[in-house]
This record gives sequence, C-alpha cells and structure tokens, in this order.
Amino acid sequence: MDTVPVTNAVESEVRDLLSAWEQALLSRDVPRIMAYYSNDVVAFDAIKQLQFVGRDAYGAHWAACMAMCSGPMIFETHQLAVDASADLAFCHFLTRCGGTDESGQQQSSWMRVTSCLRRIEGQWKIVHEHFSMPIDMESGKALFDATP
Amino acid sequence: MDTVPVTNAVESEVRDLLSAWEQALLSRDVPRIMAYYSNDVVAFDAIKQLQFVGRDAYGAHWAACMAMCSGPMIFETHQLAVDASADLAFCHFLTRCGGTDESGQQQSSWMRVTSCLRRIEGQWKIVHEHFSMPIDMESGKALFDATP
Repeated sequence: MDTVPVTNAVESEVRDLLSAWEQALLSRDVPRIMAYYSNDVVAFDAIKQLQFVGRDAYGAHWAACMAMCSGPMIFETHQLAVDASADLAFCHFLTRCGGTDESGQQQSSWMRVTSCLRRIEGQWKIVHEHFSMPIDMESGKALFDATP
Repeated sequence: MDTVPVTNAVESEVRDLLSAWEQALLSRDVPRIMAYYSNDVVAFDAIKQLQFVGRDAYGAHWAACMAMCSGPMIFETHQLAVDASADLAFCHFLTRCGGTDESGQQQSSWMRVTSCLRRIEGQWKIVHEHFSMPIDMESGKALFDATP
C-alpha cells in the first residue's frame, strides 16, 4: 500500500483491516477473504450482475473470480483515503488488479474500489463494497487501459 | 424514492439530503447539483475516466453529462440503504437512470451508486461518490440491460 499519514487510532484500525483483507485476497483463500464481510453485505462488483446480496452470494462470486485467473495474483492499493468515526468508516482507492497468463505475462487493469465498514460486536466488518471500471460511451466497452 | 423506515434522526437528515440532491439532478442545474459536494470530493463515475478529483473537475463532468442527453431526465432511486453516525454516513442504492430520445422514447439503464458523506461545518456534504455499471467479461461491454 502507499504510505500515508495516520490521523487517528480508529483510522489506523481501519487501515490495518484493509491491509489484512488485501493479504487475504492475495492468498486466494475464499473463506479467509469472506471473514472480513458482514453477513448482510451488499456488494456491487465490476462484473456479471448489478449486485450480490449477503455473504454467501458474494463468497460464491469471489470463488468464481479466483477460478477465472490462475497464477500469482496482482492487487495493488493506490491513493487510499479513509474516513472513520468510532463505529462507521468508509474508504476509497484505486487498484491495479490482475494475474499472470499461461505464458507468464502479467495482465492487469486499474479499477476503483469503495469500501464501507461498520464495527459489529467490536469487530470492523465490510458491510458494503463497490468495485468498478469506467466505460467508454462510444464503444460501450470498459476502459481496460485507463490509468491514474 | 422507495419508502423505507427511518431508524434515527441523523439517518433522516442524510435521506433528506439525498432526496434534495436527486431533485437537483432532475432540475439539470449544475451549480445547484454541485452545492451538495465538498470542495475535495473524489468521484468515480460510470464513464470516461478512473476518477474526478475536486468539485470543479466533477462539476465540469456533470455539465458534459447533462449536455449528452436532452429531454426530461430519469433518475429513480431504489433499494436505498443508509448507515449514519453523528458526522459520517454512507449510502448505497440502485438507480434507473436515463433520458428521452428525439422520438420521445425513454432510454434508461440501471446503475449502482455509493455515496459517502461527512458533516462539514454543520452541513452534510458528499465527499465521495461512486457510480458504475457491471461489465460482461466475454464482450468487455457494460451490461446496459441488467435489471435488479
């Protein structure tokens, strides 16, 4: 992750949680990833459908995503901004996300991510997540080569 | 907007603000729309580029979007969820968004929206916004016909 100043202890907790979640993504271990989400998470993912409601539905989608790309995963967090109060927080960042193809070439695109968290029984959980890519209005296609 | 129970006074304030912002969108009055954003807003919009940083950049983009579709605007809010603390809030919803073409036909698509707000000098402002459409991985195109 980029190095950024930590303005308070709660913000630091949220940054630590996101960092641990990022490590879980890189591990490709779906149950480990899903431990960071609330049971009632509502997720807007970059692909496939408008929304995934509930941890089971979103976990099945994560498993399908992991199956789509093999090899070492790329998931870099850039320009992370965190706003946190005692029990509510939101974050946004850009990510370079992708994998390695059969010939060993890295394939990645930039995406935007918004994460919204609530402290539930003392533990921060992601209760809403929004991944996306911007669209070119002429072609109707995702801007896979957009860069910050 | 859908009718939903209001769980507390702060959440009610945030819902009222979103409702006023929605009316501003329907009015197509860009300065009126931009009054709801903080100076340092970071916006991830559905089209064109990864992000718009600052109210001026995002306002110019809103003006360009308004110029793209003429006729009465469609902007319906569905499945709105709001989480609010004293000075921080986040919301997510689905919107049927579009306009009316030259022949009088409505053209619309469903999008996903996440809005993150902070109370600044007593006033709620949108400090981060994320609009998007999901993408079909086969064609690389936006799923313009996805429905809830």
